Amino acid sequence: MNTVEVCFSTELFKCYDPKGKIVVVVDVLRATSVICTMMHNGVKEIIPVKTIEEAKEYKEKGYMVVAERNGEKLDFADFGNSPFLFTKEVVDGKTIVYSTTNGTNAITVGNEADEVVIGAFLNFTALANYLEKQGKDVLILCSGWKGKFCIEDALLAGAISGNLIGSGFFYTKCDSVNASIDMWAIAKDSMDTYIEKIAQKHRLKKLGLDDVIEYCFTHNLTSIIPMFNGLHITPLV
Amino acid sequence: MNTVEVCFSTELFKCYDPKGKIVVVVDVLRATSVICTMMHNGVKEIIPVKTIEEAKEYKEKGYMVVAERNGEKLDFADFGNSPFLFTKEVVDGKTIVYSTTNGTNAITVGNEADEVVIGAFLNFTALANYLEKQGKDVLILCSGWKGKFCIEDALLAGAISGNLIGSGFFYTKCDSVNASIDMWAIAKDSMDTYIEKIAQKHRLKKLGLDDVIEYCFTHNLTSIIPMFNGLHITPLV
Repeated sequence: MNTVEVCFSTELFKCYDPKGKIVVVVDVLRATSVICTMMHNGVKEIIPVKTIEEAKEYKEKGYMVVAERNGEKLDFADFGNSPFLFTKEVVDGKTIVYSTTNGTNAITVGNEADEVVIGAFLNFTALANYLEKQGKDVLILCSGWKGKFCIEDALLAGAISGNLIGSGFFYTKCDSVNASIDMWAIAKDSMDTYIEKIAQKHRLKKLGLDDVIEYCFTHNLTSIIPMFNGLHITPLV
Repeated sequence: MNTVEVCFSTELFKCYDPKGKIVVVVDVLRATSVICTMMHNGVKEIIPVKTIEEAKEYKEKGYMVVAERNGEKLDFADFGNSPFLFTKEVVDGKTIVYSTTNGTNAITVGNEADEVVIGAFLNFTALANYLEKQGKDVLILCSGWKGKFCIEDALLAGAISGNLIGSGFFYTKCDSVNASIDMWAIAKDSMDTYIEKIAQKHRLKKLGLDDVIEYCFTHNLTSIIPMFNGLHITPLV
């Protein structure tokens, strides 16, 4: 039996021990949904960077740069953070440098883990099946919003961890897992109304960017599992 | 209209702005339940201290000291952290120095707040009525367990914030509030079985200390609201 844990914020990650575990980074609205979309449309690799300065340096070197803060595209960047921007025509075969408000921080904190993979509703079943088969403990890291708890990430954490425990190969002693499973049980059959409780929905709506929400809660658009090797995100093969 | 927010861990408190707000510290199992019990039984004042060293210094000066780490009484202390220890005979009129694993940290982080008050199920209705009448924003700080999210604190946060929003004088844009309200809605009518999901229940059981749990979920044993003034906790009058 393996354990599953959920960490509700990058700011709490230091309270967990990622050694020997698979860390699953989730940022449903929108970073990990965007990464799954890019991978599905053939991106070669994604370089996640924490700071605006790093992203600018890559831009000056000629890289294609996606950079967003507080929901909005940064001036120097090629693209903002909507998954709809990253069609096959745009990303196929490309290297993309990627910096966002929350998600790229979360991806880069998991360096001591055995593996860091990227989770979204878009790759839900493929990811759940993969995690079940590895025989390793799983730690789901919710990106949150500027350190704060986010419902949308907890919902995905609940869906994944409930699936793992349901497989019979995982157990938990983690309150965040139990809370997430309950939240997903409440929300899953009424996402169209439940979504109104999510602060990030209202932040995106203010910016006219909430057209992505239904898409980001779509299950199984892709079977690709993006993996971060400490430098690049590439599809797990 | 005033706002209500919930912070799930002392480690996340830096992500919130407590200025001008009433901070409600909760640590249901067990610190804030113990504090309400002491107040109900007539304690004169409680001095919360963060470190074991501080608690030892007070002991050497002749104070009555309650000190616990990881659930267990520290050797030098007069008492461990069960609310059942603090009868009227023991605490009436006394000054008690108090140091615990999580709760006393939470109490002492809220210094920039307008007020810091102590919440438990034991003083639920008195506290909710008080908060409704102050015309100030409320920030509920869950002590958590060594930085991690705890279900029992979220349940009380959900009960309090649901009550405040239900009064019509409060609203929220905080995901932690909405999640807590949902958790409390699931748990409240089946606490005897729901309690099994709570990691702290199992920690206390291992130590033979879980006899306090039913008591700590008892509503309205007292109408006292303990208040922390930066140095001491005394009953709000």
